Amino acid sequence: MAPAFFTSLFKQSVTPDALRAYLAEFISTFFYVFAVVGSAMASRKLMSDSATDPSSLVLVAVANTFALSSTVYMAANVSGGHVNPAVTFGMAVGGHISVSTALFYWVSQMSASVVACLLLKVATVSQDVPIYAIANEMTGFGASLMEGVVAFGLMYGVYAGGDPRSGPLRSIGPVAIGVMAGAMVLAAGPFSGGAMNPALAFGSAVVAGRFKNQAVYWVGPLIGAAVAGLVYDSVVFPGQRVNSDGV
Amino acid sequence: MAPAFFTSLFKQSVTPDALRAYLAEFISTFFYVFAVVGSAMASRKLMSDSATDPSSLVLVAVANTFALSSTVYMAANVSGGHVNPAVTFGMAVGGHISVSTALFYWVSQMSASVVACLLLKVATVSQDVPIYAIANEMTGFGASLMEGVVAFGLMYGVYAGGDPRSGPLRSIGPVAIGVMAGAMVLAAGPFSGGAMNPALAFGSAVVAGRFKNQAVYWVGPLIGAAVAGLVYDSVVFPGQRVNSDGV
Amino acid sequence: MAPAFFTSLFKQSVTPDALRAYLAEFISTFFYVFAVVGSAMASRKLMSDSATDPSSLVLVAVANTFALSSTVYMAANVSGGHVNPAVTFGMAVGGHISVSTALFYWVSQMSASVVACLLLKVATVSQDVPIYAIANEMTGFGASLMEGVVAFGLMYGVYAGGDPRSGPLRSIGPVAIGVMAGAMVLAAGPFSGGAMNPALAFGSAVVAGRFKNQAVYWVGPLIGAAVAGLVYDSVVFPGQRVNSDGV
Amino acid sequence: MAPAFFTSLFKQSVTPDALRAYLAEFISTFFYVFAVVGSAMASRKLMSDSATDPSSLVLVAVANTFALSSTVYMAANVSGGHVNPAVTFGMAVGGHISVSTALFYWVSQMSASVVACLLLKVATVSQDVPIYAIANEMTGFGASLMEGVVAFGLMYGVYAGGDPRSGPLRSIGPVAIGVMAGAMVLAAGPFSGGAMNPALAFGSAVVAGRFKNQAVYWVGPLIGAAVAGLVYDSVVFPGQRVNSDGV
Repeated sequence: MAPAFFTSLFKQSVTPDALRAYLAEFISTFFYVFAVVGSAMASRKLMSDSATDPSSLVLVAVANTFALSSTVYMAANVSGGHVNPAVTFGMAVGGHISVSTALFYWVSQMSASVVACLLLKVATVSQDVPIYAIANEMTGFGASLMEGVVAFGLMYGVYAGGDPRSGPLRSIGPVAIGVMAGAMVLAAGPFSGGAMNPALAFGSAVVAGRFKNQAVYWVGPLIGAAVAGLVYDSVVFPGQRVNSDGV
Repeated sequence: MAPAFFTSLFKQSVTPDALRAYLAEFISTFFYVFAVVGSAMASRKLMSDSATDPSSLVLVAVANTFALSSTVYMAANVSGGHVNPAVTFGMAVGGHISVSTALFYWVSQMSASVVACLLLKVATVSQDVPIYAIANEMTGFGASLMEGVVAFGLMYGVYAGGDPRSGPLRSIGPVAIGVMAGAMVLAAGPFSGGAMNPALAFGSAVVAGRFKNQAVYWVGPLIGAAVAGLVYDSVVFPGQRVNSDGV
Repeated sequence: MAPAFFTSLFKQSVTPDALRAYLAEFISTFFYVFAVVGSAMASRKLMSDSATDPSSLVLVAVANTFALSSTVYMAANVSGGHVNPAVTFGMAVGGHISVSTALFYWVSQMSASVVACLLLKVATVSQDVPIYAIANEMTGFGASLMEGVVAFGLMYGVYAGGDPRSGPLRSIGPVAIGVMAGAMVLAAGPFSGGAMNPALAFGSAVVAGRFKNQAVYWVGPLIGAAVAGLVYDSVVFPGQRVNSDGV
Repeated sequence: MAPAFFTSLFKQSVTPDALRAYLAEFISTFFYVFAVVGSAMASRKLMSDSATDPSSLVLVAVANTFALSSTVYMAANVSGGHVNPAVTFGMAVGGHISVSTALFYWVSQMSASVVACLLLKVATVSQDVPIYAIANEMTGFGASLMEGVVAFGLMYGVYAGGDPRSGPLRSIGPVAIGVMAGAMVLAAGPFSGGAMNPALAFGSAVVAGRFKNQAVYWVGPLIGAAVAGLVYDSVVFPGQRVNSDGV
């Protein structure tokens, strides 16, 4: 339809540096999903009724914090360390990365999540991959609201953690982001699932073949992250920022 | 009564920077309360007798540490990252922020806590919001003493964590504050509740409609935090400090 | 006997800066002991047979890590952040602080531990203060060996964490020390107790009135810490270091 | 056979600085193995069927994170803080250390692990040293694949954590490495064991006298670490790096 448009898009988003950024997002998202979904599988293997055990929630929340801190850290200087399509969406809404780059980020993140869940299914032989689900008594709206709120918190932490104006605090940015994610899982886990991340919910749903409530993990986080970025950038801490991605 | 006084107060504490600081306190306190109260609700949902399980205490203490580290981090460069009316009180007693600014901080923190607890009640549909309570065998005085001691520890950590004389250690200030809070919860949780934070106790009490022992979570922390500030500032590490808020 | 000697000692170790260092050690050791002993009491209150539950060990180890990281942090720039008579002993053996200053540090640390345990006993009304004890099947020699090994690890971490040659890693020194302590508790806890700290064992023994196996928590840690300091200073990383205390 | 070759090897890898690096690797690996294997023994002592309890997995994963963060930290400026033969192998493949130095690193790491496991066996009197094992339903190939994947994640974290181009993030490198290890244990623990480290599996196997599945903990991690190093160095973040060891 518009070859010139796609050619321009191609030039802009397929430089060597951009390709490295996509690979960095792929690797970081792969290990993030591997750790979060894998820890949920480990918890179920250890205890069949682990859904009713507080130490299982601690296990998954700690896995989330550990994995997000390290994978954000690993990708920070190459791709900005989004590791989450909602974060990428918020960055695009805030104008920190271009829409075309964001699309390539999304493809990297989604495919990394699917590959991680597939690998877990293959390597563990007999285990099912758990999908994100909402509590029986919750409505889709309530769950979307909750996922939106926790994604707002995460995204606000991502903005603060990557803000070069943070001075000496800059050096613990990935840790601040990881512990925010863990805190949100501890609060929201048994209610809305606490994914905060469409890739996480998408990959496990693809491999498990069930897409129930999938919309909850897209609508809530995308809106929450976008609003968080706008609030941080425009209201709480306005001013010039450097781009948050490496492209 | 004294319009000129209020006009002056208004001018001093309602600048754009001050309003941004109040908003930063609101957002950080909201997510702190959301994580701490939400994790207690999550623990109760997973296990009806969670009050007798060590892993539930670990869960709430880890939520406290994760949430306080990240929310202090997020607000540090805008409002100073108090996230706690007792900390604000201690800062005012120590002369680091004005009384009028402290009042606006309090309003932000208290309203954020109420909103967070309301949201948790609405989103989770069927769950009660747990309130802070003291163990049966404890007296109000013993509980106030314990809350005062843990608030002293927290406030002392806040002073140390925000002290620009800390040199390279400055960059992990929010983490030092968060882990101090978690350590205090692990020690005081089953006895006095381990709130250390009047906003935390106030918000959940408002939404639950029960104010039993509420005084414990005000008297202890306010005195503990004020004394800690004076000890740190005047005795242990006297000298010039920059203001700890962003106003 | 030798008034001139004591006068000289007095002048050297009772300067305003030195007194501030002793107070900083008192406060940090108080909160460290409060958190560690308090968390063990909390665990016992929640579960009467907590000695057979892995989550209780996690609870106490996390309390140790959180409390040591924050209390070392709080005292680092004033007293060097020893928070442990074995560390002070090792520093004196290595020549980093004078013997007279070390004695005052010890007095501060021991009295802080006793006060913290007393406060826990008073505030919790009905609870006993738990003392450090070794497993039934262990010998006093085996337990001393184990306490010596874990104290070696902790002291080696203290040296590395406070070494100004660490460059950018310097800023997470207190965290490195705290997580080393937690790792040692997770390994040694159910066997030798994992105190690594004579003040910890002493304060709880005084308040409980039982001194069984007390020697284990003195002989092992003092030797382990002294050897660790010598190995670090003389063999692994020889060279000039600044004093590790603030006196 | 070739005395001149060995003489040259000897000169290159037996300088005082090199010997200090080997000692630093010995000490750090000793404490890492002591904490990880010791915490598994502690967990088994507390609960005979701890293999079916999520809090035991949390316990071992937290011990891994705490111990690796601190031992990498302690050795970082002397030996580069490998603490793992697979990391050393990957560094040699990537050309960051010479093969002869890598061999001496391996000898230090393997002997440290054996000594740590022996000490644990002696000090705890009646306890067996647990060995790494794979789940019943898993194949050797699946387990090797899983160990390779988690070792890739760890090694990628080691590269990122030690990269001087990380700017302010450099200062939390050891923490990023430690939390990555903990996340991998939480995901892989109940399936392939989650050793990621041939020394860990070797030491416990030597002391227990059982070498079943030992190959899994060599083939997977060595390949995974080597590939991770090549991907990081050549593809994701190419360019000049300083040597990662202190020799």
